Amino acid sequence: MSGRFISLEGGEGAGKSTQARRLAEALRARGLEVVVTREPGGSEGAEAIRALLLHGAQTRWSTHSEALLFAAARADHVEKTISPAIGSGAWVICDRYLDSSRAYQGLAGGIDDAAILALHGFGSRGLLPDRTFVLEVPVEQGRARAESRDGVAADRFAARGDAFHADVAAAFRRFAANEPERFRLVDASADPDSVTEALLAGLADLLP
Amino acid sequence: MSGRFISLEGGEGAGKSTQARRLAEALRARGLEVVVTREPGGSEGAEAIRALLLHGAQTRWSTHSEALLFAAARADHVEKTISPAIGSGAWVICDRYLDSSRAYQGLAGGIDDAAILALHGFGSRGLLPDRTFVLEVPVEQGRARAESRDGVAADRFAARGDAFHADVAAAFRRFAANEPERFRLVDASADPDSVTEALLAGLADLLP
Ligand SMILES: Nc1ncnc2c1ncn2[C@@H]1O[C@H](COP(=O)(O)OP(=O)(O)OP(=O)(O)O)[C@@H](O)[C@H]1O
Ligand SMILES: Nc1ncnc2c1ncn2[C@@H]1O[C@H](COP(=O)(O)OP(=O)(O)OP(=O)(O)O)[C@@H](O)[C@H]1O
Ligand SMILES: [Mg+2]
Ligand SMILES: [Mg+2]
Repeated sequence: MSGRFISLEGGEGAGKSTQARRLAEALRARGLEVVVTREPGGSEGAEAIRALLLHGAQTRWSTHSEALLFAAARADHVEKTISPAIGSGAWVICDRYLDSSRAYQGLAGGIDDAAILALHGFGSRGLLPDRTFVLEVPVEQGRARAESRDGVAADRFAARGDAFHADVAAAFRRFAANEPERFRLVDASADPDSVTEALLAGLADLLP
Repeated sequence: MSGRFISLEGGEGAGKSTQARRLAEALRARGLEVVVTREPGGSEGAEAIRALLLHGAQTRWSTHSEALLFAAARADHVEKTISPAIGSGAWVICDRYLDSSRAYQGLAGGIDDAAILALHGFGSRGLLPDRTFVLEVPVEQGRARAESRDGVAADRFAARGDAFHADVAAAFRRFAANEPERFRLVDASADPDSVTEALLAGLADLLP
């Protein structure tokens, strides 16, 4: 039996990592095998690329170099972690995936969506999630949550200005409108239990 | 005044690094400003990617991930080192460039040449050298030269088998046949002085 592939998207502090863990627990409680992973990273090679992408000066990489590095990391992640897990029947929950590249380097970064998708076609055979949740919180609320979190310094992306983050939020909404079958928008300003319930409701058609 | 961009290509131990230095000296003796650089690497970011590409197990990266990493490194190298140097009027001599990706990941690695060129168009706006020299030595002679060199362990590419290296050599010859204006084949089995003379002769139409 082939597994399922779920991605969680959204701005900084939306609760993606929190909900990836909670959703995994809820699915395991239903007897499913679950693999939680994240991007950039999720495999040995991709984690090494992650370190190059998230650290250093804001100007360390051009947006084009960034897009290529994300595509390289994703190719490794898909090949080494995601595809084998799906193939073994597991549910894969991925904390950010392709749509973050489309939002951050694409719409907010100025690169054509078609070019980001072409890199994904090349590196990862265009693998798409069965369902993608966009966790929506007002930018200020996300920022406040991220700042209240201990010990995690802002990375090269979190450190961008409000206009950039508003573009990212608008990008996710646009992707969802264009691909309603794959996407679900979720109000992530609510308490964690309610958000997890919303995610499970958004998987009703996929759950056994 | 805009400078010129020269790349040196060829298999392991052909003498690319040796001739890059010698050609730079010869051009400086003619009063030209010269920047010698290399790939993968040649800028801070690209050197960090180089470390990921050359070290580790043979199977560390798929050929597709490799192609994306080389394209990312090249994009950074072009943006930070090559284009500024050419723009300032320098002659840039690059020890390996795009055609190594076309040969190693492309023809010898199984990826379509068009796909490698598309990545280059995306990352580096398709920047091509004014002249590309292919240094040709029999594979065994190159290997013997490389092995006689102190303190340089074989990297992930040098460690491949003879059939792979024969494919690489055939690829360079094919590129040269298809783009005779840009390419020059050079017999690099001769002594270093003769090879440098051949390179200078192959630049006659570009030299002031
Ligand atoms: N629904 C919620 N209500 C209140 N606080 C929350 C909620 N979800 C997450 N948090 C808290 O907000 C902070 C950010 O959450 P989390 O790390 O899950 O966000 P994220 O989307 O993964 O952020 P990043 O993009 O920075 O990785 C954490 O301290 C988390 O405990
Ligand atoms: N024309 C030549 N005749 C004899 N020895 C040479 C010649 N050119 C270079 N060598 C020697 O061969 C060895 C390999 O040369 P070099 O490092 O320049 O090759 P390369 O093409 O840069 O190799 P690599 O692909 O491994 O970087 C060095 O020890 C160098 O001194
Ligand atoms: Mg997170
Ligand atoms: Mg060399």
